[in-house]
Amino acid sequence: MKTTILLLLALTAGIFIARAQTNQPVDDWKPAPSNQPGQQYPQVNSEGRVRARIRAPQALNVQLDISGKKFPMTKDADGMWIGDSTPQDQGNHYYGLVIDGAQVPDPSGSFIFGSGAWRSDIDIPATDQDFYALKNVPHGQVREIYFFSKTANAHRRCFVYTPPDYDKDPNKRFPVLYLQHGYNENETGWSHQGCAGWIMDNLISEGKAAPFIIVMANGEISISPGFAPRGAPPGGATPARGTNAPAGGAGGRGFNFSGFENLLMNDLIPYIDANFRTIADQPHRAMAGLSMGGMQTRAIAPAHLDTFSQIGIFSGGSIATNEIKDLDAFKQEAKLVFVSYGSRENGAEGNKNVAVLKEAGINSVYYESPNTAHEWQTWRRSLHEFAPLLFKQQ
Amino acid sequence: MKTTILLLLALTAGIFIARAQTNQPVDDWKPAPSNQPGQQYPQVNSEGRVRARIRAPQALNVQLDISGKKFPMTKDADGMWIGDSTPQDQGNHYYGLVIDGAQVPDPSGSFIFGSGAWRSDIDIPATDQDFYALKNVPHGQVREIYFFSKTANAHRRCFVYTPPDYDKDPNKRFPVLYLQHGYNENETGWSHQGCAGWIMDNLISEGKAAPFIIVMANGEISISPGFAPRGAPPGGATPARGTNAPAGGAGGRGFNFSGFENLLMNDLIPYIDANFRTIADQPHRAMAGLSMGGMQTRAIAPAHLDTFSQIGIFSGGSIATNEIKDLDAFKQEAKLVFVSYGSRENGAEGNKNVAVLKEAGINSVYYESPNTAHEWQTWRRSLHEFAPLLFKQQ
Repeated sequence: MKTTILLLLALTAGIFIARAQTNQPVDDWKPAPSNQPGQQYPQVNSEGRVRARIRAPQALNVQLDISGKKFPMTKDADGMWIGDSTPQDQGNHYYGLVIDGAQVPDPSGSFIFGSGAWRSDIDIPATDQDFYALKNVPHGQVREIYFFSKTANAHRRCFVYTPPDYDKDPNKRFPVLYLQHGYNENETGWSHQGCAGWIMDNLISEGKAAPFIIVMANGEISISPGFAPRGAPPGGATPARGTNAPAGGAGGRGFNFSGFENLLMNDLIPYIDANFRTIADQPHRAMAGLSMGGMQTRAIAPAHLDTFSQIGIFSGGSIATNEIKDLDAFKQEAKLVFVSYGSRENGAEGNKNVAVLKEAGINSVYYESPNTAHEWQTWRRSLHEFAPLLFKQQ
Repeated sequence: MKTTILLLLALTAGIFIARAQTNQPVDDWKPAPSNQPGQQYPQVNSEGRVRARIRAPQALNVQLDISGKKFPMTKDADGMWIGDSTPQDQGNHYYGLVIDGAQVPDPSGSFIFGSGAWRSDIDIPATDQDFYALKNVPHGQVREIYFFSKTANAHRRCFVYTPPDYDKDPNKRFPVLYLQHGYNENETGWSHQGCAGWIMDNLISEGKAAPFIIVMANGEISISPGFAPRGAPPGGATPARGTNAPAGGAGGRGFNFSGFENLLMNDLIPYIDANFRTIADQPHRAMAGLSMGGMQTRAIAPAHLDTFSQIGIFSGGSIATNEIKDLDAFKQEAKLVFVSYGSRENGAEGNKNVAVLKEAGINSVYYESPNTAHEWQTWRRSLHEFAPLLFKQQ
C-alpha cells in the first residue's frame, strides 16, 4: 500500500516536473514584426508567446495585459521589467502594460485604434502571413479623404483604397466595396491592422480578385437616438474572449444604425460616386463589415437591395430566411451572402443559416478561420476569402 | 534698523505671495483639441498650461514630461494623478508621462511619430490656428503609396497630397513640392502634426496658393555610410530647447545624405512622375524640409538645379553665397530661396544670408515665426508662408 502511494506520488511529481518543463518558453525569441522601427521588444517565440520589456526602476508591479488577460513581469537589477505571456493565437492582438495600476500603451509596440482608444498591438507571425505581406507587386493607394456629412453635420474622415491600375486609364471605372470596422474601432482599422490594401494588392497581382475600390468609413455616429455612446458596453451582446467588441449572433440588440445608414446612403455613397471613377450601380456595389460592422451590413444592405448586390458578414451574425421580408426579391437582387467566423467563436448558427439560404437558391458561402477568435486574423482571412467572390459578373 | 529689516522682510514676503498667486493656473481648462475622441484629458488653459491626468493607484511618483522638462503630478484619494505644466508656447509639443521611472505615452492624448518613436503630442490652441484648421472647403487627398526603391533595396512608404481638383480633369497636370520631415521623424509628420493637407486646402480655397502636389517621403536611409543610425545623437549639432532634432545652422555635420539623395533622384522622382500627373520639369519642381529635412534640401537641391527651381529651408540653416559654386548659374536656375526660423531659435545667420542672396539678385525670403521654438508650429507657419510663393510662373 505504502509502496503504491509512494509510486503514485513519484509519478505525480514526474508529471508536474514534465509540465513545468513544457511551460518553459522555447528560447527562439524574435522582435515582433509589428514593432516600431529598431525596437527589439516586444518579442515573440515559435509558440506564439509574447515577451514584453520596459524600464521602470521605481515601479512595484508591472504586468503585460493582452486583451484583458494579465501576465506578471519581473524586475532585474537595472530596473528593467520583463515578462512572458502564454502562447497566443496567430495574428493580431491588442495589448498594453499595467504599471503600478496605470494602464498604458507599450512605448515599443505599434499603435492602432481599437477598444475605443489608440493602444498597442502585436502581430504573432502566422503560417499564412504571406497573403497579407507587403510584397514586390503593383500597389494600390490608400487615400485619406474628408467629406462633409449633412447627416452628422460634420466633416468625416474616410479611407479609400484604389487598386493599382486606378490612375492608369482615366476612362476605366471600378466596382466599390463599402467595408466597415467593429465596435470601438474606427476608419483606420481595415487598412492598419486589417492590412486590406496589401491583401488586395496581392490578390489582384495573382489574378485572384477583380480590381475594385474599397471605402472604409467611420461607422460610429452618435446623433442617432439609441446608439450606444463610445465607451458604453454594447447592450445585450456578449463580448467574445476578452475583447469588448460585441460577439456575432447577438442580432445587434442595443445598437441603432439609422444614423450611419443615413450617412452612408445620403452622404457617403453620393460623395464616392461623384469623386471616384465608380461603376455607380447595384451590381457593382457591395457591403461588408466585421462584428458591429457586420451587424450594420445585415441591417443596411438587405434594406437597400437596389443599392447593394453583395453582402459580407464577418463575426457579426448571419441572415436567417425568416428575417428576409421578400425572399423572391432577395433571391433576385442579392448575388452573394458571405458569412464568416473564427473557429474559436460560435459560428454554428451562421453556418446553419448559410445552408438554409443555399437551399433557398441564394449564392451563400460560409467560411471558418482556423484557430482564431474575435480578432483581426479572422477578419484578414475573411476579406481574403470574400474578395475573390466579388464582382464576378463584370 | 530693525524696522527697516522688518519692512524689507514684509515686502519680500508680499512679493513671494504675489508671485505664488500669479503661479496659480487660470481656471479655464478645456480638453486639448488634439485629444482622442471623447477624452477629457489632457487639458489646456488660456495661459497655455498643460494639465495631465492618469489613474495609477499603486504608483509612487508620476510626472508630466514635455520635451524633456518634467512637472510633478499628485495623487488624489481615488488613485488619480493630476499635474500642470508651466505655460507652453502655442502649437504642437511632444510629451509623455513618467510612471515610477517608466517613460510612456499618455493613453488619452494623440499619437504621432517624433523623437524616434510613436509618442504623445498635444496642441496648445494658437491665435492663428485658423490657417491649419479643418474647414468646410474643398479637400485634397493624402495618399499612402508604396514604391520600390533600388537604392534602399526595399519598399518605402510615402504620402502624397493631391490638391482638391486633382481628379476633376484627367488632362490637367500639377507642379510638385518634395517636403521633408526632421531628424527622428518620419513620412507621417507633415500630414499629421504638420497639418500640411489642411494648410494647402485652406490656401487653395482662398486663392492664395497654386494647387500643387506634395510628396512626403521618409528621409532616413541607413545604407549610406556615415549616416547617423536611428537613436544615435546627431554629431556636432546642438539640440534646441529639449528636442533631439538638430538645430539649424549646424551645416549638417555628422549627416551624410547621399543615400537619400540617390533614393530621391533615381527612385522617387521618377516614380512620382510616372504615377502622378506632374509637370515633370525644373520650373515646376520644388524641395523643402524642416530641420534635418532643411539640411537635406540645402545639400540636394542646389546640387541638382536642373531638377529643382525653388528651395525652402525651415529651421535647418541657410545658403551662404560662398557655398554656391557657380553664382551665375544659381541666379539663373534658383527662382526662390526661402529660409525660416522660430523666434526662439537663433535665425540671425539665416536672416543675414538671405539678405546677402537678395543683394546678389536672388529671389530670397526670410520668415520668423513669432514666439515659437524648434517645434511644429514654426513649421506649419513656414509652410503657410512658403506655399503661396511657389510656382508663380505658371
